[in-house]
Amino acid sequence: MKRNVLIIGAGGVAQVVAHKCAQNNDILGELHIASRTRAKCDAIIEGVVAKGAMKVPGTFSSHAVDAMDSAAVAALIRDTGAEIVINVGSSFVNMTVLDACLETGAAYIDTAIHEDPKKICEAPPWYGNYEWKKRDLCAAKGVTAILGAGFDPGVVNAYARFAADQMDEVTSIDIVDINAGSHGRYFATNFDPEINFREFTGTVYSWQNGGWQENAMFEVGQDWDLPVVGTCRAYLSGHDEVHSLAANYPKADVRFWMGFGAHYINVFTVLKNLGLLSEQPVKTAEGLEVVPLKVVKAVLPDPASLAPDYTGKTCIGDVVKGVKDGKPVELFVYNVADHKEAYEEVGSQGISYTAGVPVVAAAMLVASGEWDAKTMKNVEELDPKPFLTILDRIGLPTRVQIGGLGGEDRAWNA
Amino acid sequence: MKRNVLIIGAGGVAQVVAHKCAQNNDILGELHIASRTRAKCDAIIEGVVAKGAMKVPGTFSSHAVDAMDSAAVAALIRDTGAEIVINVGSSFVNMTVLDACLETGAAYIDTAIHEDPKKICEAPPWYGNYEWKKRDLCAAKGVTAILGAGFDPGVVNAYARFAADQMDEVTSIDIVDINAGSHGRYFATNFDPEINFREFTGTVYSWQNGGWQENAMFEVGQDWDLPVVGTCRAYLSGHDEVHSLAANYPKADVRFWMGFGAHYINVFTVLKNLGLLSEQPVKTAEGLEVVPLKVVKAVLPDPASLAPDYTGKTCIGDVVKGVKDGKPVELFVYNVADHKEAYEEVGSQGISYTAGVPVVAAAMLVASGEWDAKTMKNVEELDPKPFLTILDRIGLPTRVQIGGLGGEDRAWNA
Repeated sequence: MKRNVLIIGAGGVAQVVAHKCAQNNDILGELHIASRTRAKCDAIIEGVVAKGAMKVPGTFSSHAVDAMDSAAVAALIRDTGAEIVINVGSSFVNMTVLDACLETGAAYIDTAIHEDPKKICEAPPWYGNYEWKKRDLCAAKGVTAILGAGFDPGVVNAYARFAADQMDEVTSIDIVDINAGSHGRYFATNFDPEINFREFTGTVYSWQNGGWQENAMFEVGQDWDLPVVGTCRAYLSGHDEVHSLAANYPKADVRFWMGFGAHYINVFTVLKNLGLLSEQPVKTAEGLEVVPLKVVKAVLPDPASLAPDYTGKTCIGDVVKGVKDGKPVELFVYNVADHKEAYEEVGSQGISYTAGVPVVAAAMLVASGEWDAKTMKNVEELDPKPFLTILDRIGLPTRVQIGGLGGEDRAWNA
Repeated sequence: MKRNVLIIGAGGVAQVVAHKCAQNNDILGELHIASRTRAKCDAIIEGVVAKGAMKVPGTFSSHAVDAMDSAAVAALIRDTGAEIVINVGSSFVNMTVLDACLETGAAYIDTAIHEDPKKICEAPPWYGNYEWKKRDLCAAKGVTAILGAGFDPGVVNAYARFAADQMDEVTSIDIVDINAGSHGRYFATNFDPEINFREFTGTVYSWQNGGWQENAMFEVGQDWDLPVVGTCRAYLSGHDEVHSLAANYPKADVRFWMGFGAHYINVFTVLKNLGLLSEQPVKTAEGLEVVPLKVVKAVLPDPASLAPDYTGKTCIGDVVKGVKDGKPVELFVYNVADHKEAYEEVGSQGISYTAGVPVVAAAMLVASGEWDAKTMKNVEELDPKPFLTILDRIGLPTRVQIGGLGGEDRAWNA
């Protein structure tokens, strides 16, 4: 049993996390939120209060912290008495926040893999470069660390485990992520442009035939006929969960497919070919050193600003194939979320919503002890059922199509 | 009679100017070249020496100068004894260099209009915002200043005057600029990207029906069937020469058309819509203030680097319509230049060549006295015949199609 939550970060996902923590503060206890800019935290808390989101009377406090400063984060954990840290700050702060948890004994939960701002798409498996190096230390200290507990990675890992548990052998896991929503802008990314573009500028790693396969972004495309959103084209992409699922299901092919429209691909291709998505600094004629990608981020809309006008739905799920009793079996496990409903509930768009809700479900399971693993875990290494049960209740219900895409459609636990 | 030339600038056009001055140093006298980075000047001089371009033995010296510092430029003019200054530096330095000429009495010649780095496409006529404000002072001091003596503006102004001199009344001047060459890169601008894009991000001004008409870039397109390069699509664009020709031929419609392929337009549209062509600074998440356009410039190929692989031709000319003896008349006055030939002669691509050769022809006419006007002039206010005669000899021959595009084709002076 752990109580009291410290949220690190104050972006779009943090806002969802704050609302969902408030809605479940009977389980989670005192709530705290910290980022470099305390005013952003205060704005989020004001939104929570305005919605009357706190389930029971309790505290929700803001703090200023530089999450790159591990000692400062550890001091804040001690000051607040937080036993659970939800890290939804930039992907660059994972290791310093994790170190603070190792120092204080608090449980650590995040939604995306650690990144070095200077590097893109390092050697697979990505988790091996940073997080997994601390696995033994987590076990030795009995510190719970749950990696990648957003939607993808996160829920999709639980979907893979849920499907795999019904098979004798898994032969392939294809994760398909389609955002069929519309934000009405010329161009915008749905989360931090810097992280968003970094996903697509490097080598696309997939796990096939027992080894890492390398492709270029947009090299391999496939149409998927999905529930609610219809037929959408998705492209083989690099993504965190491929790197843990490949380790846990090494005999299965593990691929991640992300949907893109022609306009997104055109803008991305122009920016990439010009060198404007580079994370390496260039020097202007006036001698100013600047990272092009950071300038692109500066001119693009703030992802949080898209929420009020966002309409349409997302469909994210796993096509899992395998063998059961000697026969081929197939399941599609998925969720459909709605941008407008997300905005009405928590003031955020659907992409932030799907990322933020699961990490709170994970925190509730750490609080209850069910997922308080006392070591480092990726989501597929934990029992998926209590996770999917909470998600059903707090906004992201899971459905299954039996026999694969287009098969008999029912609730996961029907 | 004036002698001794100081070239300001050390970019692609300056390189052409250096070669052409060397090839005519019997007329021009001692040669000097100055820019912020003296090493760039030295590299140009080395290229001139390597080609054996100096017609007669003489000096060609390099200097470091900040052309934004008028007093420093004036001191350099005095030190070098230059009586002719060819300004092919950035468009931001015109006024400080012109002031230095007014201070010292040296003749001033440039190839492009002055720009304030913070402003784009100011109120027409553009020359009225800066250069023409010094016209009376030039006249009072007897200082020669020839504005816009590259190809366009420059040669096309002389073409307009040459055609107009054969008519009783001019009804329209359509300048068409087609670069049908290929540089083999994903995307590049043919001269300084900052200046190149600035031309197309603001209002497109044309002079029609006796007034300024405003359009957006790429709003008005037209196919032109031109000699050598064939049918090309060109778009109504803002350009310097429209602003002086409209003042000198106020009864004629004056339009400038620039050719663009679909790929250029796509890249430009993406960059512009994202805000990456803005000259106004943005602030990155880290608090760094940076002008997006300067970052785009930093990632694009250096225009000078395109020269070795550039193939194909340019066609630039004036379709001039008018009335002679009560009957409608039409002339197309034009030049065709070749990228590869330009590179072989002076180590530059065709766009730099066509901009750099004419300004040297103008300098030769100042040296001879024929264009030593002792006041400020745009090119169409000067006798075009000696200009076209020199251009024939030094690399940019003029041809005419009688009756307009597709008419009988002959040398301008046949």
